[in-house]
Amino acid sequence: MRTKRKATRTETKIHNKRLILKTIYDQRRISRADVARVTDLTPPTVSSIVAELLDDGLVEEVGQGPSKVGKPATLLSVADDSRHLIGVDLAESEFRGCVVNLRGQVRHRFSLPMNDRDGEAALALVYELIDELVACSDCTLLGIGIGTPGLMDARRGMVRRAVNLNWEDLPLRDLLEERYHLPVYIANDCQVAALGEYVFGNSGVGSNLIVVKVGRGVGAGIVLNGQLHYGDGSGAGEIGHVVVMEGGVHCRCGRFGCLETVASSSAIIGHARAIAQNNPNSSLHQYISSAADIDTNIVLQALEAGEEELHQVIQVVGRHLGMAVANLVGVLNIHQIMIAGSVTCFGQPLLSSIRQEMQQRALSALTAETQVDFSNLGLDIVNLGAASLVLSHELGLV
Amino acid sequence: MRTKRKATRTETKIHNKRLILKTIYDQRRISRADVARVTDLTPPTVSSIVAELLDDGLVEEVGQGPSKVGKPATLLSVADDSRHLIGVDLAESEFRGCVVNLRGQVRHRFSLPMNDRDGEAALALVYELIDELVACSDCTLLGIGIGTPGLMDARRGMVRRAVNLNWEDLPLRDLLEERYHLPVYIANDCQVAALGEYVFGNSGVGSNLIVVKVGRGVGAGIVLNGQLHYGDGSGAGEIGHVVVMEGGVHCRCGRFGCLETVASSSAIIGHARAIAQNNPNSSLHQYISSAADIDTNIVLQALEAGEEELHQVIQVVGRHLGMAVANLVGVLNIHQIMIAGSVTCFGQPLLSSIRQEMQQRALSALTAETQVDFSNLGLDIVNLGAASLVLSHELGLV
Repeated sequence: MRTKRKATRTETKIHNKRLILKTIYDQRRISRADVARVTDLTPPTVSSIVAELLDDGLVEEVGQGPSKVGKPATLLSVADDSRHLIGVDLAESEFRGCVVNLRGQVRHRFSLPMNDRDGEAALALVYELIDELVACSDCTLLGIGIGTPGLMDARRGMVRRAVNLNWEDLPLRDLLEERYHLPVYIANDCQVAALGEYVFGNSGVGSNLIVVKVGRGVGAGIVLNGQLHYGDGSGAGEIGHVVVMEGGVHCRCGRFGCLETVASSSAIIGHARAIAQNNPNSSLHQYISSAADIDTNIVLQALEAGEEELHQVIQVVGRHLGMAVANLVGVLNIHQIMIAGSVTCFGQPLLSSIRQEMQQRALSALTAETQVDFSNLGLDIVNLGAASLVLSHELGLV
Repeated sequence: MRTKRKATRTETKIHNKRLILKTIYDQRRISRADVARVTDLTPPTVSSIVAELLDDGLVEEVGQGPSKVGKPATLLSVADDSRHLIGVDLAESEFRGCVVNLRGQVRHRFSLPMNDRDGEAALALVYELIDELVACSDCTLLGIGIGTPGLMDARRGMVRRAVNLNWEDLPLRDLLEERYHLPVYIANDCQVAALGEYVFGNSGVGSNLIVVKVGRGVGAGIVLNGQLHYGDGSGAGEIGHVVVMEGGVHCRCGRFGCLETVASSSAIIGHARAIAQNNPNSSLHQYISSAADIDTNIVLQALEAGEEELHQVIQVVGRHLGMAVANLVGVLNIHQIMIAGSVTCFGQPLLSSIRQEMQQRALSALTAETQVDFSNLGLDIVNLGAASLVLSHELGLV
């Protein structure tokens, strides 16, 4: 009951329009009469707003459905491709962009390798990517959503600090809105991933959700009551840079022993390099002298070849992630926790290890009801989440 | 935009009544005209609802204030003692109850020692306590709020499991509602403490807040957007039973090395006992042979007497709490974190140690803006929080 005043007439109108659009979106096919029943709005209000939505092209009539009385009712549906959205993932090795429709179906896809660009050069790459996406879109664009690593000021659309991009206090939203004359929404990539999973993932029906995204770094995104939890300083979910290992190795944030140093794809690759160095019998040993650097694919191949030491590495990394998950369970008691990011390629052995450690570390009354799974959105999770930011703010569909 | 339908007329009426009452409560003294301005409701609507509130006795006219036009305006105020609330803390050594008014001012106070009662005997003690509080109250009672240790089903008002009370699946709300014919609200004591701090504490103006309550056990309560976050299974904040110490000591939950075993008043007392045993030069050594068991007061005296080893114990406990706080900062990025419970008696040295460890463990961009302080609500924090549950549900004032 923090509402300070009643709604004005214009607010009510916008609220009702969004309510009707969302009802049609959620129900997929529905008659005007059923919209009125579901929303409790009067049939004349529904008819007049639906007429506007038909005019806007956001909604279309899609045939006849059964009716309890009289002639068959006309069914309404959201025109999924009436608007497109751009979702961008400023991922660590490449910048990836998608053009998606209102259901998150990818219509165009484009990516550009980072090649260690940073500062102005990285910004130029963002422009190049979005220029391309705007050019190939053949529909009205609703807006641009961006998921970026680093600390954000989500309200002001500023990147406060993104270490690997060497950005500090970059007013990314303003720069992009000026260039593209479209609404732009920006948030941290892990937070955005959680929104993507919530809107387009397979994580069930609850209104709370945690996504732990584990690639070169680690971070979480938290959806509470259907809304992204940013935190007071937009930094919620920054679990990758909490120290978990006394006297641990150096982290790129400057500290020692952060979660990221023991539970990430970089940690796995680091262990694989050590095995290659120290164990002449390992299948990885060949990479020491060759030009190829060890990466996730090489680690996967060695695992498939039965490299025992590496299997143990996956167990250990899973345990560290399981400890982090146990912490999340203790703090938030959210039943649905999804793991996303490149480490999901290590499959069931990693997932089992995460689950087992979580169970050993937190109250069984809490963990018994907690589901830990891999997201099935794959590489698109941040793109879809970024598009969801637009869907949420512009149409109220999230 | 998860709203599924518009409000009915009755809901609007209740909403407007609560809105007006909350406006008068928040503004303390306000004219009808200003209520209309603040709430955006029409003057006739305000007048008619205020008449009801005057009839109910919840609001009173308290004199004249300046008016921009014409005659002076009559000022309205909430009648702070028009209703009383019962707030109960099922604390570990005694059950404590308060009768408070609508501003959280304690009008009556009563407590009963636990003497290790559990099961039915502990329930009888709850009845005895509330019987006494109901008997001494001389005002209309709005309801009863209970803060209890253990895992709750907040929606069903059930205590799922409270180890030290030996309660399992106890329908406490139903039992109390049947006995007292009053609305009853129950939640975990640490969650309730956070609500108490939010409503009646000194923790500033934000709408997010974490309370870490540290007594014999450890737990957190989380207020997000002005509302208590219970979690999907009502177990949010159960950080005391997350394992933080590999190969640690046995915890009453059955695990080893839970946060509670290293960061609680029991942990401090455990260390003090060890010092008493092992160090014949310690001022604590006398307690080995005497009948008196070492408790918080004896530890405090020894600290004041300059017992160096004990100072180090406080540092170490502070560091463990600092790690837990760093985790909370990483997960939630909430700027206001209050420490409550009996450990606050160890004062500045403990607080400094908590703050320092937090700063060393989490991103400085997040910790720099995080305030960690002791609550000043003292022993009443759970009672006031329990009363706030009633204030929130019955009058919408929270």
